[in-house]
Amino acid sequence: MPPTRATFDVFFRQVPDQGSFVVAAGLQQVVQALNNFHFDEDDLAYLRSLDLYNERFLTMLRTIKLDCTVQAVPEGLPVFPREPLMTVTGPIAQAQMLETLILNILNHQSLIATKSRRINFAAAGRPVMEFGARRAQGPDSAVYGTRAAVIGGCGSTSNVLAAKMFGIPAAGTMAHSWVESFNSELDAFRAWARMYPDNSALLVDTYDVLGSGVPHAITVFKELAAAGHQPVGIRIDSGDITALAKAARAMLDAAGFPEAKITASNALNEQIITSLLQESAPIDNFGVGEELITSSSAPVLSGVYKLAAIEQDGQVVPKMKLSASKAKVTLPGRKQVYRLYRPGAHTAFADVIALADEAVAGQPLTAVNSDPLSTHKEVTLTDYEARPLLQSVTSAASVDDVFAIQHRSQTWLRELPAPVLRLVNPDTYHVYLAPQLAQLQAGLLRELRGN
Amino acid sequence: MPPTRATFDVFFRQVPDQGSFVVAAGLQQVVQALNNFHFDEDDLAYLRSLDLYNERFLTMLRTIKLDCTVQAVPEGLPVFPREPLMTVTGPIAQAQMLETLILNILNHQSLIATKSRRINFAAAGRPVMEFGARRAQGPDSAVYGTRAAVIGGCGSTSNVLAAKMFGIPAAGTMAHSWVESFNSELDAFRAWARMYPDNSALLVDTYDVLGSGVPHAITVFKELAAAGHQPVGIRIDSGDITALAKAARAMLDAAGFPEAKITASNALNEQIITSLLQESAPIDNFGVGEELITSSSAPVLSGVYKLAAIEQDGQVVPKMKLSASKAKVTLPGRKQVYRLYRPGAHTAFADVIALADEAVAGQPLTAVNSDPLSTHKEVTLTDYEARPLLQSVTSAASVDDVFAIQHRSQTWLRELPAPVLRLVNPDTYHVYLAPQLAQLQAGLLRELRGN
Repeated sequence: MPPTRATFDVFFRQVPDQGSFVVAAGLQQVVQALNNFHFDEDDLAYLRSLDLYNERFLTMLRTIKLDCTVQAVPEGLPVFPREPLMTVTGPIAQAQMLETLILNILNHQSLIATKSRRINFAAAGRPVMEFGARRAQGPDSAVYGTRAAVIGGCGSTSNVLAAKMFGIPAAGTMAHSWVESFNSELDAFRAWARMYPDNSALLVDTYDVLGSGVPHAITVFKELAAAGHQPVGIRIDSGDITALAKAARAMLDAAGFPEAKITASNALNEQIITSLLQESAPIDNFGVGEELITSSSAPVLSGVYKLAAIEQDGQVVPKMKLSASKAKVTLPGRKQVYRLYRPGAHTAFADVIALADEAVAGQPLTAVNSDPLSTHKEVTLTDYEARPLLQSVTSAASVDDVFAIQHRSQTWLRELPAPVLRLVNPDTYHVYLAPQLAQLQAGLLRELRGN
Repeated sequence: MPPTRATFDVFFRQVPDQGSFVVAAGLQQVVQALNNFHFDEDDLAYLRSLDLYNERFLTMLRTIKLDCTVQAVPEGLPVFPREPLMTVTGPIAQAQMLETLILNILNHQSLIATKSRRINFAAAGRPVMEFGARRAQGPDSAVYGTRAAVIGGCGSTSNVLAAKMFGIPAAGTMAHSWVESFNSELDAFRAWARMYPDNSALLVDTYDVLGSGVPHAITVFKELAAAGHQPVGIRIDSGDITALAKAARAMLDAAGFPEAKITASNALNEQIITSLLQESAPIDNFGVGEELITSSSAPVLSGVYKLAAIEQDGQVVPKMKLSASKAKVTLPGRKQVYRLYRPGAHTAFADVIALADEAVAGQPLTAVNSDPLSTHKEVTLTDYEARPLLQSVTSAASVDDVFAIQHRSQTWLRELPAPVLRLVNPDTYHVYLAPQLAQLQAGLLRELRGN
C-alpha cells in the first residue's frame, strides 16, 4: 500500500442510556499506550509464525517509531454524536494499527465516565462511592473504570489499587463475613470499633436490619461516644432501602445520633437513586457497584475510528465512507470542533464541526444539522464566540489529577443548557456542520453515489 | 480478629439472559493470580500512608504466603444457581483478601463464556469469530474475554494479542479504511489479492454491496482463479444482512464461485443470528463483536463470595447469612456438588449440593430443592451415579489448552437434558440439597431467626 499519510477520526453516533452527551475520558491512558508503542521480539516471532507477513514488514514493525500527531478533546468534556473526540494523523499503516488500542480505551472510559455522571446527577450532591470491582469485566475494567467513575463525579472507591494509582480516597465498610465470623453481631461491631474508633461504619443487614443490626450499632455508638469518639454511621445493603433507612434514621435520632450517616448500596443505579430520593429516603451516601462499573443498562459506547483524509501527491484528499445505512455516512476531511457561546455569557448553545482550515470566528455562519437523518435545514448562526475543542496532544498531556478533571467536567456541564442534562428524555444539543464541511460532504456523496 | 481458618464459597444466584446455565471460566487466571499473590514495597507504603493499619499488620502483608486450599469446578463445566464453583479454605484474613480478585476474574470470564455458548448454539455449527476488542471494557476485558469466548465455542479472534497468548487462530478481514484509501474499490481489492492470494476475504460494503462491492469481488475472484488461487469469500458489515447475503450468494454462484464463503458481522447476537438462519440467510461465518465481548444484553454475572464455615477450637462451625431477601440466604458448611447420571447413561438429570462429608453414593437420597424461593418439597433420588464436580486445584491446574476446554465443555453440555439448553424459555435443571445440608440450613435458619 502506498506510504501515504492519513487522518482518522474517533467519534460515536449514539449516546448510551438515551442520554444527550458523553463525558470524554481515557486520553491519559491512550497517551501512555502510544508512548509505549512497540513490538517485542516474541510478538514478532508470533507474527512470523503466522506465515502471512514478509521480513520487510516484520523489520518495519521491529523498528517502528510512531510518527503520528494526535488531537483530542480534553478529558471530562461533554461531547456529542458525530463530533471527533480524537484525530490521528500519520503514516496510514501506523495510524491504522492504533485503531483498536485507541477505541478500546476511549470507548471504555468514556462509557463509564458518562454512566457515573448520570448516577452522580441522580444523587444530587450526595457522595457516591465506586464499589464495583468484583463485578467489573476483568481487572483493567475495575481499575480504569474507577478512574472514569471519578471523572464522572464519584468521590471515593473500594478499589484500593485504583485508589493508590490515581490518588482517590479508598472507602468501604466491613464485609458480611466479618459479622458472621464472630459469635454475635454485637461482638463483631465491638471488635471493629476497637480497631477503628473514628471510622466506625457498621454493616447492619447481615441478620436483621431493624431487629438486630441497628440496635447493636446504637449500643456500640453509645460506647464509642462515652469514650469520646464520633460514631460514623451504618450501611444497609439489602431489603427495601427506603423503609429501612427511614426506620433506621428514626432509631439513630432517638438514640441521640442525628450525625450518624446512612449509606445505601445493593445494585443501585440512577433510576433507583432517583426513586429513593423522591421517596425522601434519608440516605447520606450511595455505594454503587455493578451498574456503574459495567454501565449495565448500556454497556457499550460504539465509538468508531474512520478514515477522514489521506495525503496524495502533497494534496489532502478527503475520504468518506458510504453505507447502506444513511446514519453511517462519515464526515470527510481534517476537522475542528467548536463550542459556541453568546459573547460574554457562560452558556454554550451549539457546537459546530468545521474543516480544520475553515473560519469559525464570530462571522455569520450558514450551517446545517450534523445528523444525516435530519432534514439538513440551513440555519444561520450569529452573535457567538467559538472555542475550539480539539487540542494538540503531547506526551505531557498525561499528568492531570482525576479530581481536577472531575472539576473541569462539572464546569463544562454547567455551561450546557439545563434541558440537555436531563437524565430522562433530554433535549437534543445542536451540533451543526459549518458550510465548507457541509458542501464537501454533499459533493462527495453525489460523486460516490454517481460511481 | 481471631486467627481462625475459614471456608468461603463462590456461587451465583441468577443466570444472565434468562438462561438456565453458566459456563464456568477463569480458573486458570485465578490460579496464576494466587501463585503471584504478594504486596510490593510501594503497595505497603501506600497502605501505610492511609494511617489505618499498624506495623504488625503491614509486616504480615509483606511476608504473606498464601496458606489457602482451593477447590473448583473445571473450566467449561455448565453450572447452576447456588452451586459453589469454587471454595477457598484458609486463614480468614487471607481468604477474605482474595474475594475481589477471585470474583472479578470468575464473574467476567464465566459471563463471556456463557454468552459465547449462547451465540454459538444460535450459529448451529457455523464458525463464530470473536471481533469485539475495540468495544470491550478495557484491554483485559478484550484479551480474557476472548479466551472465555473460545471456551464458549468461538473458533477464532481478531484480537491478535489474545490469539498469541492462548493459541487461538487470528482471523479478520480488511478494514473499510483499506478500501477508502485507494482510488477505487477495485484497486483496493486487487492490492489485497496480490498480497494474500489465498486469503482473499473481501469487505464489500464500503460503498454499495450489490452495486459495486460484490461485482468488484467477482472481478478479482476471476483474476485469482485464472492464476490458480481459490477465492475465499466476502464480508458484509451493514445493511439488511439477509437480503444482501441472498443476493450476493446468487451473484457469486452465477459467476462460478459457489465455494466462496459469506461472512456477516455488525452488532450480531444470538437473537439476530437465530433470525438470520430462520430466514435462510446463506451465511457461512459470523463475526460477533460488542454484544459478545461485553455480554451487552446481560453484562453482569453476580457471583458472590460468602462465608460458609469457620474453624473454632478445632471444630468446623457452619456459617450462614440471613437477609431481608429470602433468595439471599446462603448454604452453610463445607460442601461438595455432585452431578447425577442414570447408571450407564450419559445424560445427567440433576445436581445435588451436599455437605463435604455427606455420602452421595448411589443410595436413595431424600433431597429438597436448593432454591430458597421454592416449596422445598422433598424428593427421593434413586438409581443414580454421582460424580463430584469440585476438584482440588493446584498450580499445575493452569495449563489447559483453550480448545481442549471448549471440547470438554461441549461434551458436558451434551450430557444435559436438551430442554435445559434452549436459548429462550429453557427448562430448569434440578439442583437439590442433600438431606444433611438441608437439615443444617433449616436448623441454622431457626436458630438465627430465634436470636
